[in-house]
Amino acid sequence: MNKLKKILETISENKLDAALISSVSNIIYLTNYSNFSHLEREAFLLISEKKNYLITDGRYSEAVSKIPSFELLEISDNNSLDDILKSLSKKIKKLGVQDYNISLSEGKKLKKYFKLIPLKDLESLRIIKNENEIQKIKKACQIGDEAFKYIQEKIKSGVTEKEIAFEIEMFIKKSGVDISFPPIVAFGKNSSIPHHQTGNTKLSKNQIILLDFGVKFENYCSDMTRTVFFGKADDKFRKIYNTVLKSQKSAIEQLNNLAINGKSKMVNGKSIDRIARSHIIKNGFPTIPHSLGHGIGIEVHEPPRLSPKSKDILKPGMVFSIEPGIYIPNYGGVRIEDLVTIRKNKLELLTHSPRKLTEV
Amino acid sequence: MNKLKKILETISENKLDAALISSVSNIIYLTNYSNFSHLEREAFLLISEKKNYLITDGRYSEAVSKIPSFELLEISDNNSLDDILKSLSKKIKKLGVQDYNISLSEGKKLKKYFKLIPLKDLESLRIIKNENEIQKIKKACQIGDEAFKYIQEKIKSGVTEKEIAFEIEMFIKKSGVDISFPPIVAFGKNSSIPHHQTGNTKLSKNQIILLDFGVKFENYCSDMTRTVFFGKADDKFRKIYNTVLKSQKSAIEQLNNLAINGKSKMVNGKSIDRIARSHIIKNGFPTIPHSLGHGIGIEVHEPPRLSPKSKDILKPGMVFSIEPGIYIPNYGGVRIEDLVTIRKNKLELLTHSPRKLTEV
Repeated sequence: MNKLKKILETISENKLDAALISSVSNIIYLTNYSNFSHLEREAFLLISEKKNYLITDGRYSEAVSKIPSFELLEISDNNSLDDILKSLSKKIKKLGVQDYNISLSEGKKLKKYFKLIPLKDLESLRIIKNENEIQKIKKACQIGDEAFKYIQEKIKSGVTEKEIAFEIEMFIKKSGVDISFPPIVAFGKNSSIPHHQTGNTKLSKNQIILLDFGVKFENYCSDMTRTVFFGKADDKFRKIYNTVLKSQKSAIEQLNNLAINGKSKMVNGKSIDRIARSHIIKNGFPTIPHSLGHGIGIEVHEPPRLSPKSKDILKPGMVFSIEPGIYIPNYGGVRIEDLVTIRKNKLELLTHSPRKLTEV
Repeated sequence: MNKLKKILETISENKLDAALISSVSNIIYLTNYSNFSHLEREAFLLISEKKNYLITDGRYSEAVSKIPSFELLEISDNNSLDDILKSLSKKIKKLGVQDYNISLSEGKKLKKYFKLIPLKDLESLRIIKNENEIQKIKKACQIGDEAFKYIQEKIKSGVTEKEIAFEIEMFIKKSGVDISFPPIVAFGKNSSIPHHQTGNTKLSKNQIILLDFGVKFENYCSDMTRTVFFGKADDKFRKIYNTVLKSQKSAIEQLNNLAINGKSKMVNGKSIDRIARSHIIKNGFPTIPHSLGHGIGIEVHEPPRLSPKSKDILKPGMVFSIEPGIYIPNYGGVRIEDLVTIRKNKLELLTHSPRKLTEV
C-alpha cells in the first residue's frame, strides 16, 4: 500500500522502531475509517516494519476489526492505554510522533515508555494527491457549484444569513454528501470580517453577499467563496471586486504558465502569494489579512500554504485554494476563492462557478 | 466576572504570572465568542491579574475587538505569534497552560519564552454549571425530546439510517438551533457497535433502532439515546431492554437518594458506574464497553466522568449523562441515555422522552 510505504520510508530514514499516527485525518488517510471524533482522542495507529496496530476502545472495536493491515489493540478497564504502551515498549524504543498533534500531557505519558522523535514529514503526508483523491475533490467542487447556482434563487430582501446558510447546507446534504465546514454567509458590512459568524442579519437592497462554503465527498473537501451584489453594484464595489478578481487571475495565470513549462516546482507559496497581494496593495487597498491560499483534502486546511512566509514548493498533484480578498471595515468585503490542482502540463481549475461580477 | 475569577484564583494559588487558555471551549466559556475553529489553533486567551489578552489573526480581529475585558493582540505578517510571545515574556515568566490541549510543538515554542506550569484545574473549569447554563442545556434537551417524537413518524420499512439521521438533523436545524454531534442511527445488528457509523443500511421489519443525537442551544449541548423496536419485540430483546433500563434506573435512584439527603458529594463517578454496571453483569450480559456517563456543557463530553476508574465527586450544578448499554455482536444492542443535573435536594432529569420499551 503506497500510503503506508511513505511512513515506512520515514521510519527507516529516521532510524525509528515505529511511528505513532494520532491525527484523525491521517487515520482516515491510512485506514479509510472516518468515524473517530476530531474533537477527542479516540484512536492511534502504530506503524512499524513488521506490524501495524490500531489502538482504540470498545465503542469502536467491532467496527475497526475489519480494517485490513491493522491489528486491534483494545483499551478497556483491564487493559489501559498505559498497559498497551508498556507492552509495546518491549520492542519499540524510538517512536516517531506528530508533535503538532500530541499534547504535552500525552507526550509526558508516551515519554515514560519511548524516546519520541517529531516527524515533520507526517504533517505533509497527504500533500500530493493521487488521481483518485483529486477526482473526489472534483466531485465535491461540482456539488458546490450546483449549490451556488441553487442558492442564488433563494436570495431575496429580508432573508437572513442563517436562512441562506441553512439552504446551502440542505442542498448539499440532500445531494447525499456532507458540508466540509459550516457555511459562512455575510451580508453588507458583515462581509468585512473574513470569517464572519453567520447570524440573523437580514438582507436589504444594495448589499454585498459573501458566501464561503464547501462540500465533503467521501472524506474529501471542497471550499469556494463567491461575493455577489444584491441590487445594482456601484463604482466602489466594482473597483474592489475587479481588483480582487484581477489579483486572483494574475496568480492563476502565473501558476498556469509555470505548469505548462513544467516549472511549477521552481515556485513556492510565498512568490504566488506576493503576486496576488501586491496587485491589491498597488491599487490602494489594504493587504489581504489572511493567506492567499491553503491546501485542501481530508482537511479543509492542510499543506501547502500560499502565504507571505511560505516556503512550500508547489508540485504536481497538490490541490489548493487561491482566495485573495479586500476587506474595508464598516463598508464590506470581497473574496473570490477557487480550488486548483497542478497537473504535469497545466493548472486545472476544480471549481467552475462564474467569477464575473454578478448582480442578483 | 465569576468565570474569570476562577482562573485568577488558580493563577494566585499556583503563584503564576498568567494563564494561557487555548481550548476553544474555554474560550467560548470566557468570552461568549464561538466562531473559532475546533480543528485548528486560531486563538489564545492570556489572563493575568492586571490585563487579559485575546491573541488571534486578521480573519477575526474586527469581530473580537468588541469582546469586553480582553485586549486584542493581532497576529500578522509584521507581528508573528513569536513576536507577541516574546513581548509578553518581558513581564510574564511563569505561565499556566492547559497541558492536555497544547501540542508538543506549541509547547516547544512557548518554552522559549515562559516556564510552563500545567493547570489541571482548567480541565474542570466548566464542571459546575450555573443556573443560566443549566437552563440552556434544558432547552437543548427539550428540542431533542421534540425531535425524538417527530422522528418516530418517519420510521418505516426501507428507510435508511442516513435518511433518519438527516431528518433528525433537519428537524433540529429548522428549530433554529444546531446539532451537538452528527446523529448516530443504527439498525439491526449495527446497533451492537456503540458508535456505529450511520450508513446506507435499510430498515426491515423486526429490527432494533438505536438513535443517539443531541442539540446545541446557545453553545450548550444535549445528548440522548433511545432504542426502539421496529415490529413486535421478542423475549430476547425485552430481556436486554429491561436489563438496561433497570440498570439506568438503579443508578438514577441512588443518585436521587443521595441528593435528597444532601449527600451526593459523598459519592464519586466510580461508585455510580458500579451500580449500573453490576446490574448488567449479574444478569449474564457483557460489561458496558464504555463509561456509564460523561459531563456535558459546551462540549458533548467533559468532566465529570462516571466510569470504573473515575474519582470525580458528583456535586450540585454538575450535568452529566447516565447511559448504560448492552451490545451483543451479530445481534444488536440497546443503550438508554438521559441527562441529569444534581440539585441541592434532588436529582433532576433533563431529558424527558419516554423510556419504556417502545414498538413502532
